[in-house]
Amino acid sequence: MTLLPVGVLVSGRGSNLQAILDAIAGEALPVDVRLVLSNQPGAAALARAAAAGVPTAVISHHDYATREAFDGALVGALRQAGAEWVVLAGFMRVLTPVFLRAFPLRVINIHPALLPSFPGIHAQRQALAYGAKITGCTVHLVDEGVDTGPIIAQRPVPLLDGDDEDTLAARILVEEHRLVVQVLADIAAGRLHVVSSAGARPHVTCG
Amino acid sequence: MTLLPVGVLVSGRGSNLQAILDAIAGEALPVDVRLVLSNQPGAAALARAAAAGVPTAVISHHDYATREAFDGALVGALRQAGAEWVVLAGFMRVLTPVFLRAFPLRVINIHPALLPSFPGIHAQRQALAYGAKITGCTVHLVDEGVDTGPIIAQRPVPLLDGDDEDTLAARILVEEHRLVVQVLADIAAGRLHVVSSAGARPHVTCG
Repeated sequence: MTLLPVGVLVSGRGSNLQAILDAIAGEALPVDVRLVLSNQPGAAALARAAAAGVPTAVISHHDYATREAFDGALVGALRQAGAEWVVLAGFMRVLTPVFLRAFPLRVINIHPALLPSFPGIHAQRQALAYGAKITGCTVHLVDEGVDTGPIIAQRPVPLLDGDDEDTLAARILVEEHRLVVQVLADIAAGRLHVVSSAGARPHVTCG
Repeated sequence: MTLLPVGVLVSGRGSNLQAILDAIAGEALPVDVRLVLSNQPGAAALARAAAAGVPTAVISHHDYATREAFDGALVGALRQAGAEWVVLAGFMRVLTPVFLRAFPLRVINIHPALLPSFPGIHAQRQALAYGAKITGCTVHLVDEGVDTGPIIAQRPVPLLDGDDEDTLAARILVEEHRLVVQVLADIAAGRLHVVSSAGARPHVTCG
């Protein structure tokens, strides 16, 4: 079976990366993580990757004068590693067209809300502050906006009485893990299609 | 058992009204619909109400010079009928403060999306156009915005491949019927509470 060559961009603890690595280890996911790339030298995700025998690299945005130059360095490292798809797994930098045009419609992001509700940072806090009763998570293709790209898959998660940001985030995270693994399996199997019609948003179908 | 005295405002076919009437007829809902009030003389909802022996009235917004005067007439009819809570069941006029201050935090609306996603008209069409994979329905307290009030309850509904506006609307409507009956049962039982904190949106809790 051909493995899907993927790069994973991280900034923090990397729990979604761990879900991907666990699914691969369990032979449930035909994905080859070619590189885990962090903009933060101390990201716990790097240790998770190393423990799974996956190559890692750190490219700090502080070392580049512009966002485009930083993105160019990311693209270079991912291409050198042979990555064809990119997963943003808690990566806290907004990508420029330099990056997105290098991997057109092949960058996915995991967002802890049912987009278009609660885009941007602190999505769980936003849902709590709004008083929503249902939130969830979204995996979407990344475009040049913040959390605006075509939606691949979503899962609902109820808010419960007494939830705080931590308990809600933890409950959503369980669904994020399942969702990103499911989406990567669909991509690896060639089941994902992007449908573009004149004058309309691109839509993603699966099947 | 004391029955909750409710007025229902309609503009069209009134399928959510029918769900309420059916639950009352099945003795599953301790609600007394005191009046069904339509701004459209030909609304099918009026015939549904009459068939259930519920009083009806038509107050056309065309007969009033201002939205406030129209709302004043609605308030008068609802008060005369003894309604203490108001359900907007496909009522296609935006209410002014004249109405909302007469029934403070006692007006509920049923919206066919998971607010704050897809507010306003054609919510199902909006969800399809966005390419969302999960939408749903919301029952919320009405405030002076359009679909911005405190959320009481929500239910998720998946979008399916091949859905059009009609198939999606029909699937959401099934959940709307369940949700509005559940919310009215909670109100009638005194389980609904509005929590207001300084500087924050009012939140609704149930229990």
